[in-house]
Formats: sequence, C-alpha cells, structure tokens
Amino acid sequence: MSMEDLYAKPGHLIRRAHQIVVGMFMEECAAFDLTPVQYACLVAARENPGLDATRLSHLVALDRATLGKVLDRLADKRLIRRGSSTRDRRQKTVELTHAGARLIAEVEPAVSRAQDRFLSRLPLGERRAFMSTLSRLVELNNEYSRAPLRLVANVEQE
Amino acid sequence: MSMEDLYAKPGHLIRRAHQIVVGMFMEECAAFDLTPVQYACLVAARENPGLDATRLSHLVALDRATLGKVLDRLADKRLIRRGSSTRDRRQKTVELTHAGARLIAEVEPAVSRAQDRFLSRLPLGERRAFMSTLSRLVELNNEYSRAPLRLVANVEQE
Repeated sequence: MSMEDLYAKPGHLIRRAHQIVVGMFMEECAAFDLTPVQYACLVAARENPGLDATRLSHLVALDRATLGKVLDRLADKRLIRRGSSTRDRRQKTVELTHAGARLIAEVEPAVSRAQDRFLSRLPLGERRAFMSTLSRLVELNNEYSRAPLRLVANVEQE
Repeated sequence: MSMEDLYAKPGHLIRRAHQIVVGMFMEECAAFDLTPVQYACLVAARENPGLDATRLSHLVALDRATLGKVLDRLADKRLIRRGSSTRDRRQKTVELTHAGARLIAEVEPAVSRAQDRFLSRLPLGERRAFMSTLSRLVELNNEYSRAPLRLVANVEQE
C-alpha cells in the first residue's frame, strides 16, 4: 500500500475528520477551556443525577482510563464533584456543580457553531446523506469500538 | 443541548467512527502489535528515504508531540532507526529498518481487511457517496485541523 492508497482509506480520512472537528470545537470554545469529551461528560452528568463512572463511560462512549483523566480535569476545574453511591460505596458517582451547570449553558452557542461548521460548506442534500450514512455506520459497527456506546444500563450495575 | 442532540452531532459520530476504525485495525492486525498511525509512519518512511520528523508529521497529519511518542515506540521495536540529516544535523531523520520493511509487507493483507470492514455493510453506491463526501470534507477543512496534512514540503526545510 502506498501513501496515496492510504490517504484514500476510510481509516485515514476519519482520523483527519476527527482532528478537524476537535480543532473546530477547541477554536469556537477557546474562551471556555473545554474539550468535546469534557463537554459530553458535563451534559451526561446534568441529565443523570447520581450517575456512576461506569455508566458515564457507556453514555459518552469513552474507555474507563480516558474517562478517569477527563473527570480529574473536570474536578480540578470544579465543574463536577465526585462522591460514592449510596447503594454501593465502591461505585464512584459524578455530580455536576453549579459552576458546571452554568458553563454548559454559557458554552452552548459555541458548541452549536462548532458542530455546524464542519458540514457548512456542503449542499444541504449532501450534508443529510452524509450524516445518515455516518449514523448508520456507527450504529452497525458500534460493537467493534473499544468503547461502545451503551444506552441501556447493565443489570449488574443497577 | 441534550444527550440525544449530542449523539446526532457530527463531532460525536466522527469520534465514534474513529474509535471503530481503530478497533477494527487493532483486531485485524493483532498479531503484529501495530497501530494505524504506526503503520502510516512506516509507509511514509519507506516511500521517503532520508525523511525528517517535521516532514513526516506533515505527511501523516500528526502533531509533533504525538509523533514523537509513535517514533519512540517504533524505534523500541527496531522497526525504524533514527539519525541526523547530513544537510542539517539538528534535523532528525527517520529510516525504515529491514524488520520494518518486512513488517509492512506482512501486515498489508490485514490492513486492507480492516479498511474494507468499516464500509462493508453498506451498498456500493452509498459507500462511494460517503467516501466522496468524507474526502471533500477533509480537504475543504484541512486547515482547521491541529495537525493538517501537508504534501508540499516547506521551502525552509528543504
């Protein structure tokens, strides 16, 4: 396989697309010092009071090691507070602070701008077709990810 | 923005697509203990004798800090050899070893399988349309990446 072949492969193009969407997010949200996965964790914590870290890793599709670092950073910035579950003290919980809730609200317009930018140069029809195929690909292949998205809680964790 | 909104955004879907293609690559290439970016660096080194690290970072679209770690790992595995440029001794060069060249040849079928798998469940027409849009998006937005692909060497480095 030559470099030219490699440049045309889905793996290479998706890695570069990912760098671009992260770059756009960081640029639009520069004033808030927030990464895309930090933002996803804050939103998941807001919507799920008493959330534990295992469940959070499934909701945001992040492996536990990476999630641990993201949560350390969010706790350092006082955007979340960590605790222990009342049902199982070994289970660590994640709770949004007032500062975290305020930040999500304030950053929202910048997040929306970042998300819109990536597709903005495409005609509407092509944009829709691309998003439809991308959603299907991610759904069809979810289990092959090393950090699959899981919306239904594992029974043992409940 | 709710979690549901976030799941439908290009940023989230592309991050998950990236996790999936990396997961498939690692699975297909498990016997070779090789990551997608390590593979890209080896191919770039094979095609560009006397390659320096700055130019390599442009060819594989990786920031210098990340590339440094990838090269450390490849050197530990004796797949590349590092040296200094004959034109400028401050410029560090990367050279493929015999073991590196052998590995690229051996791993090639597994890499091709990994790349084909991601799109394999789509009808051919949808696959082509998706790849065409993805290529355009990456090309149109290349400059917004924090590690843009640069095929033309910077004059100062020549």
